[in-house]
Amino acid sequence: MNFTGAHILSIKQFERADIQRIFDVADAMEPYALRRKVTRVLEGAILGNMFFEPSTRTRVSFGSAFNLLGGNVRETTGFESSSLTKGESLFDTARVLSGYSDVICMRHPQAGSVAEFAEGSRVPVLNGGDGANEHPTQALLDLYTIRKELRSNGRSIDGLRIAMIGDLKHGRTVHSLCKLLCLFQNISLCLVSPKELAMPDYIVEELRSAGHKVTITDDLASSIGNIDIAYSTRIQEERFASKEEADLYRGRFRLNQSIYTQYCEPNTVIMHPLPRDSRADANELDNDLNANPNLAIFRQADNGVLVRMALFALVLDVADQVDNYSREVNWYNSLRTK
Amino acid sequence: MNFTGAHILSIKQFERADIQRIFDVADAMEPYALRRKVTRVLEGAILGNMFFEPSTRTRVSFGSAFNLLGGNVRETTGFESSSLTKGESLFDTARVLSGYSDVICMRHPQAGSVAEFAEGSRVPVLNGGDGANEHPTQALLDLYTIRKELRSNGRSIDGLRIAMIGDLKHGRTVHSLCKLLCLFQNISLCLVSPKELAMPDYIVEELRSAGHKVTITDDLASSIGNIDIAYSTRIQEERFASKEEADLYRGRFRLNQSIYTQYCEPNTVIMHPLPRDSRADANELDNDLNANPNLAIFRQADNGVLVRMALFALVLDVADQVDNYSREVNWYNSLRTK
Amino acid sequence: MNFTGAHILSIKQFERADIQRIFDVADAMEPYALRRKVTRVLEGAILGNMFFEPSTRTRVSFGSAFNLLGGNVRETTGFESSSLTKGESLFDTARVLSGYSDVICMRHPQAGSVAEFAEGSRVPVLNGGDGANEHPTQALLDLYTIRKELRSNGRSIDGLRIAMIGDLKHGRTVHSLCKLLCLFQNISLCLVSPKELAMPDYIVEELRSAGHKVTITDDLASSIGNIDIAYSTRIQEERFASKEEADLYRGRFRLNQSIYTQYCEPNTVIMHPLPRDSRADANELDNDLNANPNLAIFRQADNGVLVRMALFALVLDVADQVDNYSREVNWYNSLRTK
Repeated sequence: MNFTGAHILSIKQFERADIQRIFDVADAMEPYALRRKVTRVLEGAILGNMFFEPSTRTRVSFGSAFNLLGGNVRETTGFESSSLTKGESLFDTARVLSGYSDVICMRHPQAGSVAEFAEGSRVPVLNGGDGANEHPTQALLDLYTIRKELRSNGRSIDGLRIAMIGDLKHGRTVHSLCKLLCLFQNISLCLVSPKELAMPDYIVEELRSAGHKVTITDDLASSIGNIDIAYSTRIQEERFASKEEADLYRGRFRLNQSIYTQYCEPNTVIMHPLPRDSRADANELDNDLNANPNLAIFRQADNGVLVRMALFALVLDVADQVDNYSREVNWYNSLRTK
Repeated sequence: MNFTGAHILSIKQFERADIQRIFDVADAMEPYALRRKVTRVLEGAILGNMFFEPSTRTRVSFGSAFNLLGGNVRETTGFESSSLTKGESLFDTARVLSGYSDVICMRHPQAGSVAEFAEGSRVPVLNGGDGANEHPTQALLDLYTIRKELRSNGRSIDGLRIAMIGDLKHGRTVHSLCKLLCLFQNISLCLVSPKELAMPDYIVEELRSAGHKVTITDDLASSIGNIDIAYSTRIQEERFASKEEADLYRGRFRLNQSIYTQYCEPNTVIMHPLPRDSRADANELDNDLNANPNLAIFRQADNGVLVRMALFALVLDVADQVDNYSREVNWYNSLRTK
Repeated sequence: MNFTGAHILSIKQFERADIQRIFDVADAMEPYALRRKVTRVLEGAILGNMFFEPSTRTRVSFGSAFNLLGGNVRETTGFESSSLTKGESLFDTARVLSGYSDVICMRHPQAGSVAEFAEGSRVPVLNGGDGANEHPTQALLDLYTIRKELRSNGRSIDGLRIAMIGDLKHGRTVHSLCKLLCLFQNISLCLVSPKELAMPDYIVEELRSAGHKVTITDDLASSIGNIDIAYSTRIQEERFASKEEADLYRGRFRLNQSIYTQYCEPNTVIMHPLPRDSRADANELDNDLNANPNLAIFRQADNGVLVRMALFALVLDVADQVDNYSREVNWYNSLRTK
């Protein structure tokens, strides 16, 4: 695709080469994200960061990514504006608001609304999540993390062995990741979930059509022995039909250090879209994994900044100019060392 | 007036030469608003953008205008601070908050409160709207839009022929615009509204005292034939005394493409303060006008950024220095082309 | 202490030399706070300004301080994020959010939560107030104000004579100030409050152990005759056991110009943590003191910016580089003249 001036609304718009391009640019952003250098390439540019639904980390991640390219951020949170409730069309709203910025990131509770907004916008729009529909930058940062973690083990996305664990029925994150994986080759997926929270059939079909090997199971221990990535997601109790059903599965999809040591290969990387529920009875990742160097969940969040910087740089066509406006950082830099 | 260090609280403080000066500076801001160039003239300066009442577009427009001059924006929205409810005077609030910024834009639901705040402030205060009282930058951007649209037809504000349509009784916008028009010469106004929502007498008097020709009517078709500008405003149903009254006028002040084609001169410019109600039964501007090149409603919103940049530049006395700190833009620029 | 990379969580972490260092750096920030110069020393750096409890002035003061050093601010207000309510630990929240910024300022309603957050953070955390616990920058700006006001009278903190007036039982501000004063020598404190709102015994003990002279009284007039500083705080009526008790003390701790003239030495400086209740029946500082040049309450607020700039400069290790990235201001500067 031609990124210049494009809206980023859905992972469906990417081909494999586009993913490759985004990730290469993201790699090039690392010196800035780690504050080894700062750049002024977007000095004077304005991001309209429109969050019509709360999401602190996505909002701040987009905003910081734009700041790291030298740009300014004008932010709107909540349905503060009553204009939409006064009968204004999304087209009008977009027409007006796009006059105040050079690029817009928008999150909205309603599926499809970001695409509708984009039609009225005079500047590129990035989808920051539109309800149950899409959250393309999350999918990209997940796949980027996989690529980066595997590369340090000398491997690549092609040939990946991954287990997805938890509520695979409702998880927008894992659905999008599966769709992206269809652009790659020779992947083994083990889908581990309670039977009633299984991955939707149409996604399994897509994966198989792409030539991937898919195993479906509700047994964790037998699924995590020969994998590169364990991608864990939350199971919310209220998703089960009954308390009995929930009790049946309680704790069976939880990963902790002793399970990891007993069943996983030593380099298996653990991912999670966050936030994770750290309470004792949660069906997720235990805190005792925090000391495990293969727990990549916080690197995942960090990678979100890189991916978002890359998208901004691409749609505003400055990916190749970032270094021209850069200098070394002159302040104490915690991020450089941790 | 001397703009340097001045508060901008009311359109009453302007003489014709002041309006002229603001508009000339606004013209000079265009290369920056269109992102042909960026400037650092206010690098290091801070705008305190205080919105004690929600208004996304006014707030973002002020903030973006300041960013486009190179400055930073610190924002406050809602009555987040409980200080005012703890009995703190507006004087104290202003005294403190003005220590954090170089200029303040303030919106407040209570008429007169921005002027009261300005008395305590140590930095210039711009009125972003104080309840039913004033919204001077809206009036300025409306008049600026008229000047700009007419100029492309080789005309000027003196000699203007304008129809104001809709609820002329409650519309703060049209009241302020009428007052500004009193500074100019030889204007014909056609005031088109339901009888019970007519322009207040005292404003009609002011217009006539200024030598302008005023026609009052409730018939749209006969009023829009020989005008330069059709300025439409919303009629809210609840403004009528009864449902019968509302039904009587339903749709009679609505403008759409077929009415435009049938009655208006080909260059007649359509304006509206926005937001416009796009629902089917609204008494406003139809969406089928969106393709009409004389629909200036989004250019109006864009012009708000220019006018606000001009005011910031004037009160901080950098209007003549903006170009000295400028350079060409290096990123993809949607706004340049649309 | 070594400031570089340090968290600033409590006044207990400071020794006298640390206070001295902070105040010397704060002095050096004055040309920037007064807009005689601007600096780019933190250009490209990001402050995460996280206010999980509203506090407009503290939030804006931190944000402006960071802007004045050339940095960007990404802000979060309110419990907008539901992550914490979804069972996420403060450790996880800190781990993620600290990846988006170079330094974090955090205010939180719960005592101890900022320190807990700091444990997970990869960047320095500044406590912007954690409930009833600590608000270290307020204590620092109070003491810095005392130093600055006394210095203009040729005196220093050692040997200070101060009266603290009002609710000394609940006032976090005066408690912290007392603790800081224990680092200095030969101080006379007159603690003026209703008996049931007296300074806690353990703080009086600490002051006496530090060698200071402490007088406890409920009589204002006899306490303000030989002092350098009158530090007034609010007495909230609901703090009294009964309305009778409240009536007993009504107005007895109020300072106004005639009381000041009658009882105080001519250079006595009046301080207050703000906001002050300006309503007629409040137990605080009268508005007729506004013309008194020794009313330092707004200079106190201004000094907050200097102290916060100093802390940012110290923890990010740029205190000695600020001038290297500076230039003269080119805009009209109200603050320079008032």
